[in-house]
Amino acid sequence: MEEKQYLMLPGPTPVPPRVLRAMARPMINHRGPEFKALFEEVTAGLKEVFRTQNEIIIFPSAGTGAMEAAVVNFVSPGDKVVVVSIGVFGERFAEIARRFGAQVEKLDFPWGSAADPEALAELIAKDKEKEIKAVFVTHNETSTGVTNDLCALRKAIGDHPALFIVDAVSGLGAVELETDQWNLDVVVAGSQKSFMVPPGLSFLSVSERAWKVTEKCTNSRYYWDIRAAKNYAEKGQTPYTPALPQLAALAESLKIIKKEGLDNIHARHRRHRDMVRTAVRAIGLGLLAPDEVASPALTAVIPPEGIGADEVRKVLHQEFNVVVAGGQQTLKNKIFRIGHLGYVQDLDIIAVIAALEMALVRCGYQVELGKGVRAAQEVLLNS
Amino acid sequence: MEEKQYLMLPGPTPVPPRVLRAMARPMINHRGPEFKALFEEVTAGLKEVFRTQNEIIIFPSAGTGAMEAAVVNFVSPGDKVVVVSIGVFGERFAEIARRFGAQVEKLDFPWGSAADPEALAELIAKDKEKEIKAVFVTHNETSTGVTNDLCALRKAIGDHPALFIVDAVSGLGAVELETDQWNLDVVVAGSQKSFMVPPGLSFLSVSERAWKVTEKCTNSRYYWDIRAAKNYAEKGQTPYTPALPQLAALAESLKIIKKEGLDNIHARHRRHRDMVRTAVRAIGLGLLAPDEVASPALTAVIPPEGIGADEVRKVLHQEFNVVVAGGQQTLKNKIFRIGHLGYVQDLDIIAVIAALEMALVRCGYQVELGKGVRAAQEVLLNS
Repeated sequence: MEEKQYLMLPGPTPVPPRVLRAMARPMINHRGPEFKALFEEVTAGLKEVFRTQNEIIIFPSAGTGAMEAAVVNFVSPGDKVVVVSIGVFGERFAEIARRFGAQVEKLDFPWGSAADPEALAELIAKDKEKEIKAVFVTHNETSTGVTNDLCALRKAIGDHPALFIVDAVSGLGAVELETDQWNLDVVVAGSQKSFMVPPGLSFLSVSERAWKVTEKCTNSRYYWDIRAAKNYAEKGQTPYTPALPQLAALAESLKIIKKEGLDNIHARHRRHRDMVRTAVRAIGLGLLAPDEVASPALTAVIPPEGIGADEVRKVLHQEFNVVVAGGQQTLKNKIFRIGHLGYVQDLDIIAVIAALEMALVRCGYQVELGKGVRAAQEVLLNS
Repeated sequence: MEEKQYLMLPGPTPVPPRVLRAMARPMINHRGPEFKALFEEVTAGLKEVFRTQNEIIIFPSAGTGAMEAAVVNFVSPGDKVVVVSIGVFGERFAEIARRFGAQVEKLDFPWGSAADPEALAELIAKDKEKEIKAVFVTHNETSTGVTNDLCALRKAIGDHPALFIVDAVSGLGAVELETDQWNLDVVVAGSQKSFMVPPGLSFLSVSERAWKVTEKCTNSRYYWDIRAAKNYAEKGQTPYTPALPQLAALAESLKIIKKEGLDNIHARHRRHRDMVRTAVRAIGLGLLAPDEVASPALTAVIPPEGIGADEVRKVLHQEFNVVVAGGQQTLKNKIFRIGHLGYVQDLDIIAVIAALEMALVRCGYQVELGKGVRAAQEVLLNS
């Protein structure tokens, strides 16, 4: 049915109607007073979600853009860096760092598991000469549905001078993250996830320590140069034309976020995770991530033996207008990923579980209809 | 009056209501069939506006992003390049090229004038060793309201192997540009100018010759890597999350462009240029650019002796809700710039001229009210 879709992706996520409408606002002068007010409003709102007093830079770009900014502003060619990788987006950080001349040491964990803080502590302890300039970590790994324990990983570095740089694109706003309390130097986020805004903006918070590094950083940069962004921000402007519709949308969505409250939003995401996981187990399917590290933002599901994940996805899309994501790279056709972040309410989850049951029946898997739904209902009523 | 503004900037330009509404469309999966159809539709439409069969890459970014892409994909560190500069955006190209390690030779012309093709031909003729790898040129210089003769500049290079790389951000779609016929290797454009779409997308066309250069280019790149973009485009996708609202808006605006016809659109822009210039002269103000090179997209006006350009702008904004741009850098407060590109019709121009007359009276300049308006009307009726 045209446009009436359950978009259960880990991004782009559904956008509330009032946020969509906010984008239909006529253009304004990005060098004028209306823009300054908008820019200052969204920057203040972002700081609340990041839970930080640090400067926040807003780029007109995909989240990957801010990941690149998190490399080129803090890593000089030849620098040694550690990239903690638990999936596709850890690999992406490593690849960007390599492209810009870093000597990358990867600390890999099997896809579907979280990073072990002790392994990071050991690696850091070996660096007697303090050669490691930065540690890159994924907050919430979108390819596997695993959340890393950022607070413990940060502590594993102790007082080693390496910057702690976090890709929080799919996690921030849905999953607990305390930029200041946990002492996170650089945190990257994007508009199209828990912020409930269409893709087109990325965000970067920068600690004072990180600002000192960027001043000396020798990597080539222009578009991503946070020094220029900071200078313009002091006038309430951006160095080049900002993505006005997404900024207007963000102002609107930040009001919605403030009204629900970040703690309540986190609790809702955990509840939806538990509903999905309990239902998936009741239906008899597998889960890629163990409970202890399972992401509140999305769930990676392993289909029954003999049924391809993409077959289930196809039926969900064609018969029930439910869109879920596939597996990436080595996980292709092995899992499907149910996004439950952003503008998602309890009944959306239940409807999607019902659709999943029916899709499985269509794919030839015998499931007692309603069993997963009931399991999700029970989690909801007991929450 | 809230939101009812004459936004006469050289970007962002006014967006037609139906294009604004197109952005309010719910999100879709950027890895799904709906996106593929949208992506292919806008790519085909862009090729018509670029007048090219070359590949077109679409970035989620400001126009400056595609300028950076036009450097990092075609210029290797140490390469010698020529940047033809007639204003702020020529300087920007030079600065980006320098940041990424190019040896930049500037070919400067006074701000307010166009580039002389003979001067470029002479410079190229001196390069017996064919060391120059690329020539960067601005199509339409937004800071001064001057259009370069791209066709003549391209011819000035003759069969020298340097790539010819054009910043057409503020010109393409408003001012004649023939990518294939004029043999332009790389052409950069943005959504927020004549395309009548909000900021957030940039475009880059790439000739076959330029593709060969990018394969060997050693500059660091990830976000702007056109090889990745090309690989994904073959599947109807982008390497990372695209700016969906602007793409939906672009699909809508390309229909409007097709209906009016590119030649008619160019004629409209020339007519508006002539209306504005004739009116400005009738009022007794100065024009920065001479007639022969005056931009159809915007006009830089020199206010009367003793009145600051920013004073006129302030009155226009506060009393008449007309927003025009100020002068940049050395032209600050010396000129104001009336944008007349994109979604602008004849009566908009006349209303703005009337407002300008009244603003000048408020600023203490004696002008016969209606004189500029009449001059513009005469141009219109005789066109």
